[in-house]
Amino acid sequence: MLSHLNNYNIILASQSPRREELLRGLNIPFEVQNVEVEESYPSQLVGVDIPMYLAEKKADAFVDKMDENTLLITADTIVWHEGNVFGKPVDKADATRMLKALSGKTHQVITGVCISTLLKRKTFHVISEVRFSRLSPEEIEYYLQNFQPYDKAGAYGVQEWIGYIGVEYIEGSYFNVMGLPIQRLYTELKRWKK
Amino acid sequence: MLSHLNNYNIILASQSPRREELLRGLNIPFEVQNVEVEESYPSQLVGVDIPMYLAEKKADAFVDKMDENTLLITADTIVWHEGNVFGKPVDKADATRMLKALSGKTHQVITGVCISTLLKRKTFHVISEVRFSRLSPEEIEYYLQNFQPYDKAGAYGVQEWIGYIGVEYIEGSYFNVMGLPIQRLYTELKRWKK
Repeated sequence: MLSHLNNYNIILASQSPRREELLRGLNIPFEVQNVEVEESYPSQLVGVDIPMYLAEKKADAFVDKMDENTLLITADTIVWHEGNVFGKPVDKADATRMLKALSGKTHQVITGVCISTLLKRKTFHVISEVRFSRLSPEEIEYYLQNFQPYDKAGAYGVQEWIGYIGVEYIEGSYFNVMGLPIQRLYTELKRWKK
Repeated sequence: MLSHLNNYNIILASQSPRREELLRGLNIPFEVQNVEVEESYPSQLVGVDIPMYLAEKKADAFVDKMDENTLLITADTIVWHEGNVFGKPVDKADATRMLKALSGKTHQVITGVCISTLLKRKTFHVISEVRFSRLSPEEIEYYLQNFQPYDKAGAYGVQEWIGYIGVEYIEGSYFNVMGLPIQRLYTELKRWKK
């Protein structure tokens, strides 16, 4: 359905197996490559500007490996809660702190996505609201012991046990909460012109 | 986390592989059994009353196979759109009609769930709103050719290609749209007393 992109080599530069799985769902050919950047950003950035900045930073880090046929996709996801960013937890205490803060409340999951070629770049973001039920200390402990969510923003995977038992509702894209707003990405790729 | 249910044999009476997969996500032991009922209901029923009626009908059909240790879970999911039920499509023309009707609009997915023992029964429903983008005739044709969604209410699986490219947003439980409101079910099971 995206045959106008057939002349491109589509590259997803991401270490996230969830992003790869989601992009596979579009049934288009692409390859995955690693991109190593420090996930730091200017301290004055807030909310949506942070993952958009980081998605572009990942694209910048990849530019030397691109040729004229490369169409690059990079993305970054954050949890934004009461004016604070929750990134990947550094240890179990940090993960516990995050899940306690999210318990019984609604937070935002924001993904910034950058589509780029050597000629052009388009960056956008998608926000989903996620409401957690009140999580008991036992539920938090059980999850951290069994699922080790240290590679996940906000210390949870919505597609894991804690998403099953704890997410009361979502407003927006579920796939965005997993790490890639695939419907919006499809729409942007449909519109893509050289 | 649901150790107060350890004395029960939990049975999911459903033919749906998605419901089985979702219940597996709770990490509790259970078995799956078939239940054969005609999915007909009194014509005066509307909206939420339809899947609740059918979930109870499935429980009724299973009652002879239960003993005092059985905890039975049955469920039914419908798509409710502009005052009409969309069940499983009977053929390709019917599926095309459903997807055209859902295209560019918001519909409701309603699952009725019945938890029962020989002594007690609890039936509830969960509603999720789903908004589809405008689907082109080519997208509908591509989906029906490649995914054959004839076992799915409303002729779509949200976890399939069409959900990736077409679902703009959800308000409510994503897992409910897949066929089982697992967070609510977990909450009801936590509260369950003999």
